[in-house]
Amino acid sequence: MTNDIQEIIETLAKFNDDRDWEQFHNAKDLALALSIEAAELNEAYLWKDVEDVKIEKVKEELADVFNYAFMIADKYNLNVKDICLKKIARNAEKYPVEKAKGSSKKYNEL
Amino acid sequence: MTNDIQEIIETLAKFNDDRDWEQFHNAKDLALALSIEAAELNEAYLWKDVEDVKIEKVKEELADVFNYAFMIADKYNLNVKDICLKKIARNAEKYPVEKAKGSSKKYNEL
Amino acid sequence: MTNDIQEIIETLAKFNDDRDWEQFHNAKDLALALSIEAAELNEAYLWKDVEDVKIEKVKEELADVFNYAFMIADKYNLNVKDICLKKIARNAEKYPVEKAKGSSKKYNEL
Amino acid sequence: MTNDIQEIIETLAKFNDDRDWEQFHNAKDLALALSIEAAELNEAYLWKDVEDVKIEKVKEELADVFNYAFMIADKYNLNVKDICLKKIARNAEKYPVEKAKGSSKKYNEL
Repeated sequence: MTNDIQEIIETLAKFNDDRDWEQFHNAKDLALALSIEAAELNEAYLWKDVEDVKIEKVKEELADVFNYAFMIADKYNLNVKDICLKKIARNAEKYPVEKAKGSSKKYNEL
Repeated sequence: MTNDIQEIIETLAKFNDDRDWEQFHNAKDLALALSIEAAELNEAYLWKDVEDVKIEKVKEELADVFNYAFMIADKYNLNVKDICLKKIARNAEKYPVEKAKGSSKKYNEL
Repeated sequence: MTNDIQEIIETLAKFNDDRDWEQFHNAKDLALALSIEAAELNEAYLWKDVEDVKIEKVKEELADVFNYAFMIADKYNLNVKDICLKKIARNAEKYPVEKAKGSSKKYNEL
Repeated sequence: MTNDIQEIIETLAKFNDDRDWEQFHNAKDLALALSIEAAELNEAYLWKDVEDVKIEKVKEELADVFNYAFMIADKYNLNVKDICLKKIARNAEKYPVEKAKGSSKKYNEL
């Protein structure tokens, strides 16, 4: 059984390969593209209360963010599940439950 | 067999639940947090050629981007694989191979 | 009498010249640096109500945003007052008072 | 003689006042808008060498960045020249010429 993440990454690779787009996709520009999509996601919330946001726009822009993030992971052969879980574990150390519970402070202010 | 994406989302939910952080995590601030992490990812490339980038920094910041993206998906009960594959399919229509091959132009300039 | 904008731009040029930093300051990286500073400005507001923001952090990060914006303007020999006033005039056409008054919609939705 | 910065800020205030837009312009959303415009400026450089960028797009998006930055300064009654020159002076301490000359490292790595 294929894994979901692998399936997305392979679909993206085929999409780009079909269009000969690998030539443009250096990691620096991919990271730039990701941040532009993140800004478009934020635009869904601009001047609005969170309840008034159009979910269709959120879906579209979030998918763009994910797709560029997956392309960067693929570029460096990173295991997405692995880096995500490791980062959560590291954050668990930086933000121990007893100190961080109910606080929105940064770890260096706790 | 659990799915990788589901495992990441559940690990994040438990991490936040343990810290009582759901109260801060409205979707507007989650999207803002995501774009801040995207900027930190870009900082890895700032003033540098792509070969000189520190991969450890990329891994860390990319993981942060993914984790906020997964939290937003969880917030809206979105199926990540589904929205990603649908967006690729939509892009395949906007960028037909015969027109887009080898070009970095936006679809409205093709 | 020197003009304020000119004085900031000249101070920045001297600062960079003293450090031999012009070599790093291609416009693409300056724009990237600007967006990273914009993200740091946004971080001042993250997880917070607008009243709880630390004004000192806002000042610092807003100054960074301005300084990179002035460096980009200098790079292209743009007249800052001129481009700003022209853009306001263009927006006045896109958002005529009678249509836009009291609405936060984008011009293409008005 | 009016000062250039003051003239831009007053023109923006009148533009917003005419449209009754002050109600949307809390500082958190203004900062968000600024970062969205910064992303649009970066889009001018995406997938491109710096020489191939369209200067008209740069002008437009840089003006948007400036205009939101001026609105935030106005919101907090900040003196733009003052905060910019102070930040340059602070950076001059963080990056002393003898250490920083010809280096693109961050101050904490010098």
